[in-house]
Amino acid sequence: MEKVLRQVLEQVVPSDEERAFVARVAKQVVEKTERAAERVFPEADVTLQGSVAKDTWLSGDVDIDVFVLLPTKLTRDEFREIGLAIAREALRDYRVVERFAEHPYLEGYVEGLRVNVVPCYRVDEPGRWRSAADRTPYHTEYVLKRISGLNDEVRLLKRFMKGLGVYGAEIRVGGFSGYVCELLTIYFGGFLGVVEAASRWRLGQVVVDVEGYYRGREEELSHLFDSPVVVVDPVDKSRNAAAAVSLDKLAEFIAASKAFLKKPSTEFFLPQTLATELAQADRGFDILCLWLDGLNQPPDVVWGQLRKTANALQKLLRQWGFNVLEATPWTDERGSGCVLLALESSQIPEVEKRIGPPVDSDHAERFLQKHLNSPRLVRGPWIEGGRWVALVRRKYTNALQLLREKLARGGREHGVAGYVAEAIKKKLVLLQGEELVKWFSQKPELRELLTSFAERKPSWLRKNAG
Amino acid sequence: MEKVLRQVLEQVVPSDEERAFVARVAKQVVEKTERAAERVFPEADVTLQGSVAKDTWLSGDVDIDVFVLLPTKLTRDEFREIGLAIAREALRDYRVVERFAEHPYLEGYVEGLRVNVVPCYRVDEPGRWRSAADRTPYHTEYVLKRISGLNDEVRLLKRFMKGLGVYGAEIRVGGFSGYVCELLTIYFGGFLGVVEAASRWRLGQVVVDVEGYYRGREEELSHLFDSPVVVVDPVDKSRNAAAAVSLDKLAEFIAASKAFLKKPSTEFFLPQTLATELAQADRGFDILCLWLDGLNQPPDVVWGQLRKTANALQKLLRQWGFNVLEATPWTDERGSGCVLLALESSQIPEVEKRIGPPVDSDHAERFLQKHLNSPRLVRGPWIEGGRWVALVRRKYTNALQLLREKLARGGREHGVAGYVAEAIKKKLVLLQGEELVKWFSQKPELRELLTSFAERKPSWLRKNAG
Repeated sequence: MEKVLRQVLEQVVPSDEERAFVARVAKQVVEKTERAAERVFPEADVTLQGSVAKDTWLSGDVDIDVFVLLPTKLTRDEFREIGLAIAREALRDYRVVERFAEHPYLEGYVEGLRVNVVPCYRVDEPGRWRSAADRTPYHTEYVLKRISGLNDEVRLLKRFMKGLGVYGAEIRVGGFSGYVCELLTIYFGGFLGVVEAASRWRLGQVVVDVEGYYRGREEELSHLFDSPVVVVDPVDKSRNAAAAVSLDKLAEFIAASKAFLKKPSTEFFLPQTLATELAQADRGFDILCLWLDGLNQPPDVVWGQLRKTANALQKLLRQWGFNVLEATPWTDERGSGCVLLALESSQIPEVEKRIGPPVDSDHAERFLQKHLNSPRLVRGPWIEGGRWVALVRRKYTNALQLLREKLARGGREHGVAGYVAEAIKKKLVLLQGEELVKWFSQKPELRELLTSFAERKPSWLRKNAG
Repeated sequence: MEKVLRQVLEQVVPSDEERAFVARVAKQVVEKTERAAERVFPEADVTLQGSVAKDTWLSGDVDIDVFVLLPTKLTRDEFREIGLAIAREALRDYRVVERFAEHPYLEGYVEGLRVNVVPCYRVDEPGRWRSAADRTPYHTEYVLKRISGLNDEVRLLKRFMKGLGVYGAEIRVGGFSGYVCELLTIYFGGFLGVVEAASRWRLGQVVVDVEGYYRGREEELSHLFDSPVVVVDPVDKSRNAAAAVSLDKLAEFIAASKAFLKKPSTEFFLPQTLATELAQADRGFDILCLWLDGLNQPPDVVWGQLRKTANALQKLLRQWGFNVLEATPWTDERGSGCVLLALESSQIPEVEKRIGPPVDSDHAERFLQKHLNSPRLVRGPWIEGGRWVALVRRKYTNALQLLREKLARGGREHGVAGYVAEAIKKKLVLLQGEELVKWFSQKPELRELLTSFAERKPSWLRKNAG
C-alpha cells in the first residue's frame, strides 16, 4: 500500500519547478484581471480561487480560477455585462471561449494552462447568495483554514476518483467535485480515511456532515436532500455539496474502495490506456451509434442534450422490444458527439406475444376484433390463464431500421433534444458493424471511446481478469 | 339462431333407426353381462348406465356403459378380480382393452360401438362410496327424474362443448363431463339458458348449486372447492362435479358463449376441418416436436405423462432463456405421441445480461470473481442502478441443441415423466423445420394436429377472420 501511494504521489505532487511556473501564470492573470477591473469597474475585487489557491491541484492537470467580486447592488444584467467585460479585457491577448451554461464566465489558455475568469457577487455574509459562484470564496476560505498538511491527501483522492471516472460535478460525469474531495479528506483525516469509510458505505444512506450541523438529527437529512450522497456544505447548511453525485458513480466509488483496500494498485489512480483492438466481429452483442456534427453549444449544454437523447433512444428501442444494455452520450466538446447504444442484439424475433384482457372483460371483444382483422396476426388469438393472447408479427425486427425511420425528421416527437434533432435533420448518421469500427478507427480518442464502451469493465477490474 | 339450432339438431339427434340399433347392441351387452355374472358371481347386478340410459347421446358418437354392481362386503382386491372376471366373460367374443388408470374396467367394441363394462360397489346409500364408479347409478337416477323434455338440449350443449374442445373430464381435455352438461341443462332450463348464463360468468366465481345445498352460504363453496368451476353434485354435496374443468377451458366456454350469442353459427358445434397447408416456412415463430413411440400404457396414463413432460420441457427451455409460447401434449392413444413446442424463436441472442448484487453487498465480491474469471464474459462487469451487472455468452442459443443435450439420457432429472424418459432412451426424436413438416404430412390426423397447433385459433374464430 505504502509503495503504491508513494508511486502515485510522485505523479500527482507538482515539482518546485512546476509550482513556480503555475504561480507565475496565476499571478500574471490576476494582475491582468486587476488592471482590467481598474479600467472597467474599479469597485470590483480580484482574487485567486480554486485548487491553485488551495494548493490541491494535480501535477500536469491544473485550472487557474480567477474570480471577479462585484457589489450586490448590481442587477443580474449589469452583473453579467460588467463581469464579462472585465474578463474579456483581462484575457484580450489570449484565445477565449465564453461559457454560458449556468453562469457567465470566460475560459482562456495562457501559456498552455487553462484559465477561468469568473464573475461573482461579493455577498456580505454566507447564505445571501445571488449567483451560483458566490459561495466559492467562502469555500476557499473554509478549506484553507483546515487543509494544512492534508494537501497531498486531497491529491491522492482526486487522482483516485479521476482514475475511476467519478471525479467532476459536471453533467457529463455526475461525480464528486474538487471541493467535495477536500471536505471528505478533512472529515476523514486523509485519503485512506476516506477510502476506508467509503468501503463501508451503504447505498442510500451516505451522509457526511462535516460541521455537525445536523448532529443528533441526521435522519432529517434524507428528507431534506434527495440524493445518493449528502455532504452538508460547511458554508451553507441548506446545501448538499455532493448533489451532483449519481447513484452509479457512488456505487463505483464504493466498489473500487473495497477492491483497492483488498488489493492496492496504481491501476486505480492511473489506469492503463486500453489496447484498442477494434475489429471485434465476434463480440456477441451489438453496438449502434448515432453520430452528430455541428453541436456548437457550450459543453454542458451539449452533454445535457446528448444525455437526454441517449435516454430517449433507449426508451424508443425498448418500446419496440429491443433489449438495450446501455445508452451512453459522448462529445469531443468541439462540435462533434454521439450516442453509443449497446444492445443484446440489434435483430429480434419476427414475432411477439401480446397479452390481452381476460375473456370475461368488456375489452375482450375489442382485442379479438383488432387482432383477427390484422394482417400481422400469426397465431391465435388463444386463451392462456384466462386471458386472450395473440402472436403478432413485429413491425421492426432490426434496431437500425427502427432508428432510421423514427429519426427521419429529427426525432423530437420521440424525445430527442432540440439541438441534436437539428443536427439529425441536416444529416442522419447511424453506424453499425464494420462501418462503425471503421469510423471509430480514425482517431485515438474515438478508438479508446469505443473500446471502453464495448468492454465496459472499470479500469481497475481489468488487471484482475488476467 | 333458430335455424342454426335446427341444423345442429338434425346432426346430433339420432334417427329412429340408429336408436333401434344402439338399443339392440346395448340390450345384447347387458344380457351377455348378466349371463357372465350368473356364472362368475351371482350376487352381482347388471344395469345400463351413461348417456344411452339417459337418452342424451349424440348421433354417431355413442358409448354403451354397462355397470356391474357388486356387494360392499367384497374387499378391494376381490372387487377388482370378480369385476374384471365378469367383464372379461361378458366381452369374451370381442376385441377388448383393460383400463386401469383410475378404476378397473374393460373396453370393447361390439358391432362397431364402444362398450365399457364397469364394476362398481352397490352402496346402500349415497355418500358411502367405496370406489370411483359408485356414484354413477345415483347420477343416472337423478338425471332420469329431471331430464324429460330436455334431452335434445343436452345434446346441443354437448355438441357445442365438443366443437369448442371443452367437452370431457379426462386429463387430456380438462373440461366438462357429460353429467355436468346434464346438470347445467337441468339447472338453466336448456341449452340457451346455459350459454346465456356462461356468457355472463366471471372467471373465479362460477358456482352452480343445483339442489341449493349451500343456499345462503355460497361463499363457503370457494373455500371448500379450489376449482375454477364449482358444480355441486346433487347426489353428494361434498363433491364438485366440475372439478376437472381447467381455467382455460372455462375461459374458452365463456368466450365462445359470448361470441355465439352475438353471432350464432353452426361452426361452434361442427367446426370445419382445417385446410392443412403445412409448408409454412414463413411462419415467423418456431415449432419443435419431441416424438415418442412405444407408449403402451392406458391413454389416461400416457396423457398424464405427456402433460408432465410438456411442462418440464417448457420450464427447461424458459430456464435457459427461450421464450416458449406453448407446450402441448398429444397421443394417438395407440402407442405414439408427442410434445409440441411453440417458441417465439428457437434461436436466441448469443449473450444475456446477468444482474448481480448491489455493490455494497457481501455477495459483490463473489459475483465479480465468478464473472472476471469466466471465459464467457463479454462485457463488464459494470454498475447499473447500484448493482453489478455482466454480459455473458449463453451456453445454449439454439433450442434444439439444448433439448438434444438435456434429453440425451432420458431427461428424468429435468422432470420428464418415467415412461416418456424410457421411450426417449430407446430413441430420441426431435423435429423442427422441414423435417417436422414432412413427418406430420404422413397422416391426416397429424396434419390436422400440426396445423391447428400452428394456427391455434379456436375454430369458431376462424370464420370471423375472413
